[in-house]
Amino acid sequence: MKSRIVWSQKAVWKKEWKQDTLLIYDLNLEAFAESRAWIRKFPARYGVRGGEAVKSIDAFPSHLRKITELAAPFSTRKMTVIVAGGGSVGDFGGFVASIFKRGVRLIHVPTTWLAALDSAHGGKTALNVAGSKNQIGNFYPADEIHVFRSFLMKQPAARLREAAGEYLKMALLVGGPLFTAKWTRNNLATQMWRRLPSVAQAKMRIVAKDPLEKKGLRHLLNLGHTMGHVFESESDLPHGLAVAYGLVFALIFSKRKGVCAEKDFEKILRHPLWSLYLPSPDYLKAMALPPARVRKQLLRDKKSVGSARLRFIFMKGPGRPVIKDVPVEEIVAEMRRQSTRLRGLYA
Amino acid sequence: MKSRIVWSQKAVWKKEWKQDTLLIYDLNLEAFAESRAWIRKFPARYGVRGGEAVKSIDAFPSHLRKITELAAPFSTRKMTVIVAGGGSVGDFGGFVASIFKRGVRLIHVPTTWLAALDSAHGGKTALNVAGSKNQIGNFYPADEIHVFRSFLMKQPAARLREAAGEYLKMALLVGGPLFTAKWTRNNLATQMWRRLPSVAQAKMRIVAKDPLEKKGLRHLLNLGHTMGHVFESESDLPHGLAVAYGLVFALIFSKRKGVCAEKDFEKILRHPLWSLYLPSPDYLKAMALPPARVRKQLLRDKKSVGSARLRFIFMKGPGRPVIKDVPVEEIVAEMRRQSTRLRGLYA
Repeated sequence: MKSRIVWSQKAVWKKEWKQDTLLIYDLNLEAFAESRAWIRKFPARYGVRGGEAVKSIDAFPSHLRKITELAAPFSTRKMTVIVAGGGSVGDFGGFVASIFKRGVRLIHVPTTWLAALDSAHGGKTALNVAGSKNQIGNFYPADEIHVFRSFLMKQPAARLREAAGEYLKMALLVGGPLFTAKWTRNNLATQMWRRLPSVAQAKMRIVAKDPLEKKGLRHLLNLGHTMGHVFESESDLPHGLAVAYGLVFALIFSKRKGVCAEKDFEKILRHPLWSLYLPSPDYLKAMALPPARVRKQLLRDKKSVGSARLRFIFMKGPGRPVIKDVPVEEIVAEMRRQSTRLRGLYA
Repeated sequence: MKSRIVWSQKAVWKKEWKQDTLLIYDLNLEAFAESRAWIRKFPARYGVRGGEAVKSIDAFPSHLRKITELAAPFSTRKMTVIVAGGGSVGDFGGFVASIFKRGVRLIHVPTTWLAALDSAHGGKTALNVAGSKNQIGNFYPADEIHVFRSFLMKQPAARLREAAGEYLKMALLVGGPLFTAKWTRNNLATQMWRRLPSVAQAKMRIVAKDPLEKKGLRHLLNLGHTMGHVFESESDLPHGLAVAYGLVFALIFSKRKGVCAEKDFEKILRHPLWSLYLPSPDYLKAMALPPARVRKQLLRDKKSVGSARLRFIFMKGPGRPVIKDVPVEEIVAEMRRQSTRLRGLYA
């Protein structure tokens, strides 16, 4: 199924949302007049606080009881769930829509850069079980995705910096204009808004070839995520930042394995957006993670291919990803190597 | 997706189930030597007690934490969940498989007549929320369905009587040989075992035309279930029995509305399997349900089409179902009418 994406300058609201529609939204949106007014237009709404806690399976029964009550007067056949928020609220609300009455209509309104760029597209939903991220979930593409520029522009600069990690990932994966596009230091947000449609399109093209992640093609989107998820869980970094550092790890690993030639490596690292991430104290801290904790997280990876091997995405150059099965121990060793060098570099 | 169905005289076990496979099974199966021995062959297994309690959303986080632990050493890509049990365990285990790591391979081993006849086929999964049955779930057809005659033959006669309600439903819906097949009083179980493949096939043919219940075609399978679900929730009857009484209600309703001619009505009621159900004290008790409680349950029906109307399946004759939208109040009134007549009849 293809999701229809609508990009708008201001918040859009439709009369039909008065009926049989439940808004699941991030309570943080109440801090801004425009989004607050937009939320209040929905007769049936359920507010949650964005962040990993909303994805805990332990809180799920209580959420569902309240949602069941709110949806009691709705016609099942016409029911729509609209989910307004960032990645965590999107994962949670998408999952609710996918299983409520065995699946109802879903509209995503991503309100963070990261969600608008990445997580709202592609239909993944997820909850966490006992501290393991995204342990359960499914594939449930939204019928529509509405992105409002005015909502995104309220986001603090830190969120934009985080989101740029996923931008870099897509730019590396597809290469071409997305990779060579010029960036100037000022008005990052305006530049990102202009490029959102091409990033979303690039992602949807990959997803369309492998919607259920069965053929390995969609797995390309995991570039930077193998170590990214380790940093996210163990160093408590926001997803986008963790992915950015995971990308750096994957690039250096690619060069060391001889997959990426020196000149391609240089070309990639000259991309202006890296300056948002490197050098940074967060990166040094993430890379100082003890090998035992890296190993523990890698062994939990959903991309496990059995006997302690993982599917890892290397880069040959912009637009030229390579998938290889790698022993977990080789990744742990590479982490130790990069970490030792870094300590030397900044000592 | 089409499920492969395998009918076997004895329990089948495969070497490949030693690895990356979790058995979710009904603890009641431990009462019989053959099923107990079969269960013990699985290195990773999770026992639950069959019945609606296993489908409660409140117990779900705890189940998932334990299942996550058991599955920790598995390769995600190769992981299989085998679900052995009746309808409730099947609904629960199918749902787990559908969302675990965003969906793993699923094999159903229905061990009750009802599950072997109906619920294991067609891919519906479900959990209950705050006392509302099947409030959440999805469509997740099993890759394989294995039915073992020796397991079914251990079922008490009461379970077979219940299952015959769903048999009658399918026989009515498709008509032909399934409806005209002769039944003798003795060895009901042997006769039912012989007919299971045709019933399963008939169901799969309907499901294949409308796997996600979007076109209304699959809705035919709801024959007898509108009132059946009311009886199940309010009178605490087993599903199969509740459906049998729901069928009687639908047939009398069809005759009263002029949808079913007198001679077709007689032909249907001459089916030998009705003698398993009518007359019975359970039926009289179910039909004595106060209108207010009937109304409350009908308004919760997932087949609601808005403004207190429901999609109801009437019968013209064997093999000739008719779908009509009916006001909830008309169903409540018909219930009152049938109930009053019954009191007169047996007074």
